[in-house]
Amino acid sequence: MFDIQEIRSQFTILNREVNGKPLVYLDNAATSQKPNSVLEVWAQYYTELNANVHRGIHTLSQLATEEMELSRRKVQKFINAKNDFEVIFTKGTTEGLNLISYILTQKLKKDDEIIISYLEHHSNIVPWQMLCERTGAKLRVVPIDENGVLQLDTFDEFLSEKTKVVSVNQVSNALGIVNPIEEIIAKTRKNTNAYIVIDGAQSAPHFSIDVQKMDCDFFVFSGHKMYAPMGTGILYGKQQVLEDLPPFHGGGEMIATCSFDGTSYAGLPFKFEAGTPNVGGNIALGAAIDFIQKIGQENIQNHENALLEYAQRLLLEIEGIKIYGEKANRTGVVSFNLEGIGIASDVGMILDKLGIAVRTGHHCTQPIMSFFNIAGTVRASFAVYNTFQEIDILVEGVKKAQRMLS
Amino acid sequence: MFDIQEIRSQFTILNREVNGKPLVYLDNAATSQKPNSVLEVWAQYYTELNANVHRGIHTLSQLATEEMELSRRKVQKFINAKNDFEVIFTKGTTEGLNLISYILTQKLKKDDEIIISYLEHHSNIVPWQMLCERTGAKLRVVPIDENGVLQLDTFDEFLSEKTKVVSVNQVSNALGIVNPIEEIIAKTRKNTNAYIVIDGAQSAPHFSIDVQKMDCDFFVFSGHKMYAPMGTGILYGKQQVLEDLPPFHGGGEMIATCSFDGTSYAGLPFKFEAGTPNVGGNIALGAAIDFIQKIGQENIQNHENALLEYAQRLLLEIEGIKIYGEKANRTGVVSFNLEGIGIASDVGMILDKLGIAVRTGHHCTQPIMSFFNIAGTVRASFAVYNTFQEIDILVEGVKKAQRMLS
Repeated sequence: MFDIQEIRSQFTILNREVNGKPLVYLDNAATSQKPNSVLEVWAQYYTELNANVHRGIHTLSQLATEEMELSRRKVQKFINAKNDFEVIFTKGTTEGLNLISYILTQKLKKDDEIIISYLEHHSNIVPWQMLCERTGAKLRVVPIDENGVLQLDTFDEFLSEKTKVVSVNQVSNALGIVNPIEEIIAKTRKNTNAYIVIDGAQSAPHFSIDVQKMDCDFFVFSGHKMYAPMGTGILYGKQQVLEDLPPFHGGGEMIATCSFDGTSYAGLPFKFEAGTPNVGGNIALGAAIDFIQKIGQENIQNHENALLEYAQRLLLEIEGIKIYGEKANRTGVVSFNLEGIGIASDVGMILDKLGIAVRTGHHCTQPIMSFFNIAGTVRASFAVYNTFQEIDILVEGVKKAQRMLS
Repeated sequence: MFDIQEIRSQFTILNREVNGKPLVYLDNAATSQKPNSVLEVWAQYYTELNANVHRGIHTLSQLATEEMELSRRKVQKFINAKNDFEVIFTKGTTEGLNLISYILTQKLKKDDEIIISYLEHHSNIVPWQMLCERTGAKLRVVPIDENGVLQLDTFDEFLSEKTKVVSVNQVSNALGIVNPIEEIIAKTRKNTNAYIVIDGAQSAPHFSIDVQKMDCDFFVFSGHKMYAPMGTGILYGKQQVLEDLPPFHGGGEMIATCSFDGTSYAGLPFKFEAGTPNVGGNIALGAAIDFIQKIGQENIQNHENALLEYAQRLLLEIEGIKIYGEKANRTGVVSFNLEGIGIASDVGMILDKLGIAVRTGHHCTQPIMSFFNIAGTVRASFAVYNTFQEIDILVEGVKKAQRMLS
């Protein structure tokens, strides 16, 4: 059974006050808070078995290695990857996307095409722009309609033998819109041999993920948005794809043999994990998965969807509010502005005085802001520990901000 | 005053046993243990102020940003950088070196030359081999003599107008040899316009660092080898150099404006810090610097040098021992083999049974091993919390291993 107070009791930070008010943390799309179990696993690692992994035969090194590899297998199950070595530890989604865009360099040539969407975070735009600069490839961008929904008829037109990469997010960080990636992947597979990259930063915390069923080539996400410490993330890649592509970083761990005459590379996953990994963080990511699975992914999704529905219903009662993507299929995020109040950050500052943490600005998605001809939005984003009472506080806060700024 | 028991009491893990014996942790060149103050700062961050930084106007985000920027200024002072924005947070030395080698790509052309040394870690070899593959540049490797000392007369011969990069470590991880980087830098500056990269992974934990006095272009090191959590590291770069070079990763935080027509990049340090940083880890790195400075870098260095001298003196009393770099200027590391015992890991396993953690193998420096025509060494490496009594235990352990394996 889903006991919200029991869940909240696992997050010490939720007891704190901000500006004399109880903290209402609604900035979860930026980063989630971490349950005590995750913090304890991390601390336990450093007080009981910290050592560098894989290369040591002493006991601590072996224990640390076992724990990190156990965590890798937890991730494997979490996303239903076929093999544990298809799971690469990164420092986050941004590194994952950059890694992919770098190792694909040799696979693209002038006038090849990379398809992304208007709904992407800068981290799923800029690496591809840089890849285009390196190779002469061209970026095609799937447009959105006034509801923020991807226009798939244009996507269909884009698909051709020139298409070498299709990279889209499963959920938009700025608006919370759930994209039809099943359809996008099916169409891409049918019409092209393109690499398919899914940015799961905003979906992995909320959805059950099945990369085999999804049939993507790459799936990337961050630990810190799903209850794990910062500095952790995952790059999933299909075995055959990862084996075929060159490494990204050179260094320790990723070589088979190294000499000045030439270096040969290690097998998966080590080929893509040069250097000392964030062992403590990676183990704590496993604990975050335990936390999620103990509550149940379906329970989490139902709760977050109920929060979103409730928030949207109450917010829409406010005169002059505009919710971006109001009519789209969304999860975890409500992004809005108040008519006549040009600067979202003014609303954010008033909410902050009331203890409410929301994000304001462009959310690293300037193209979406340009599309709607705005500088930014106020974004409230939800996690498993948020309550309906917190939504009430948010809505009252928005009304107060409207009164004060009108 | 230097109170070793007081220092040890700050490391909970040092109380543990391994195989029924008190842990003797002598694998510090792989990773150091972390004092409670560092772990507490990290935990406090997550229980009191966790938020994503820079982009938020709410209180937690501002507090998190202030703490991380305070940590950046601690690092700035720690290495005496001129400006705080010359300090870039990375996940470790390997990422730092790869970042540099990538952003230099456009600066090199066919037949240009990159000089490294025989004493480098794979992380300061492979990225340059990959850069050579991308550009057609050539790698020149400064040889060592039988003491492991760099042959600078050959270095002099290598220097020419073709030299575009000189990258060497300040201290060898495999042997602990301290390289004459002042002389290397002075000669490079005098004879070339090359970029000068110093790998400080094994020096920053032991020495006082002054990047301005050193006059390098880049200085990279890891947090986890100097009492900070894994997943942290620093890339220092001179302002003018960093401003002139392109970014590495694309994503959030590193853009000034982003559109599908083109993207412009943010100023320093953000241009090189795409994505959510490891805020908790970066703040904890500041706490690690506090820990070091409270004891005093000179005190640490004196203690570690005394440990090394003591260990070397006692080990040399063992018949048939060979210490690599025995006569070289060294710090923090003693790397050895026993005559007639071909496999270093056999020694390591016996030491592990006695609770002693040392590293055995090639230490990610296969070229050094090839030079000495060996597969690996036994490496004991020291940190501030090691004791003379632990050296006694090590030496007795090595004697026991010799008896058992002879």
